[in-house]
Amino acid sequence: MSKVRILNFTISLDGYGAGPNQAADSPLGVGGEELHNWMVKTATFRKLYGGEGGEEGIDNDFTVRGLSNIGAWILGRNMFTLSRGEWPDDGWKGWWGENPPYHAPVFVLTHHPRASIPMEGGTTFHFVTEGIHVALERAREAAGEKDVRILGGVNVIRQYLRERLVDEMHIPIAPVVLGSGEHLYTGVNLLELGYKLTEHVTTSDAMHLVFTRS
Amino acid sequence: MSKVRILNFTISLDGYGAGPNQAADSPLGVGGEELHNWMVKTATFRKLYGGEGGEEGIDNDFTVRGLSNIGAWILGRNMFTLSRGEWPDDGWKGWWGENPPYHAPVFVLTHHPRASIPMEGGTTFHFVTEGIHVALERAREAAGEKDVRILGGVNVIRQYLRERLVDEMHIPIAPVVLGSGEHLYTGVNLLELGYKLTEHVTTSDAMHLVFTRS
Repeated sequence: MSKVRILNFTISLDGYGAGPNQAADSPLGVGGEELHNWMVKTATFRKLYGGEGGEEGIDNDFTVRGLSNIGAWILGRNMFTLSRGEWPDDGWKGWWGENPPYHAPVFVLTHHPRASIPMEGGTTFHFVTEGIHVALERAREAAGEKDVRILGGVNVIRQYLRERLVDEMHIPIAPVVLGSGEHLYTGVNLLELGYKLTEHVTTSDAMHLVFTRS
Repeated sequence: MSKVRILNFTISLDGYGAGPNQAADSPLGVGGEELHNWMVKTATFRKLYGGEGGEEGIDNDFTVRGLSNIGAWILGRNMFTLSRGEWPDDGWKGWWGENPPYHAPVFVLTHHPRASIPMEGGTTFHFVTEGIHVALERAREAAGEKDVRILGGVNVIRQYLRERLVDEMHIPIAPVVLGSGEHLYTGVNLLELGYKLTEHVTTSDAMHLVFTRS
């Protein structure tokens, strides 16, 4: 049975899913890149971007899980681009080059319609203006038997959580201070939403926490 | 040189320093006790309360640090008692029995004056109505060469942090979901306040994080 999952969405020790001042040279905001140290060093991540080497072990296992059995992806527009409002005619096709690491349909939530963008390697960016429920419907349909992964950002995750649409989530905490930014758990009561901590394991670069909704 | 320190102040994975609905049978709020699993199991903690056995290791080392070289303590009234407003004549002397684990002067922040309470083992509870600065002044004087430890709760810690009065803090994150409660980092920007993460080590029960102000 297909599930809706949030995976590898890392927050800082003070609770932020991205740093302040997102910009072209810091798409995750100031300090935001460091959140993902645990993942970037892994063999799986390196391979994903055409590199070699990297570490095996717990952090790698979670990186693998984040990519396994994913049939469709959902993300907010702010994760796709820096531009806001009407789509500019700037040829932007996301942060990830011609062959993005998704290899499946990716549904981008936006208020502004835009034609789909087919990429190499099986990724197609679709732009959904009808809200989170429609995006999920389309993603489920595209995913078939596989799972739908909600990539982020914080605002999108909070919306899906509040609507009780997420079956499982893996939210690592990285030993990184961001100081400010978007706080993941503001207005989100995990217990009220029915989540239980079903798995936790720590490494030098992350406290891996997995929540399952009952 | 005497320092002002916050030590062993544990928060949940969703950022709360205590659970909701503090009550006589759950002084740390619902689920709040679990925050301290990492500490309660240690040899040092057991000994502190007259027990035997317990674990050595990283968690125990941090428990030891939390008790070493402390010459005075500061805590908010809500950590001392459930009662609010004018002090009732109920004989309440804190949660910790006749011989509290402080063994030094303890300054309790309150808006309502009250005579000091001497306890066994060197602990005396003093009640300070003149605010956090006066409480710190008195604590520093009492501590002499030793350090002042700010025990909590969340509101008291935030006040001292914002006034840039804390030299060092150890804030473990426990793999516990509280869902709601008092959020430690709300309105506290650790970077702006000059804190750097200077130490982090993880165990199965806590991610130990130490911040130092530069």
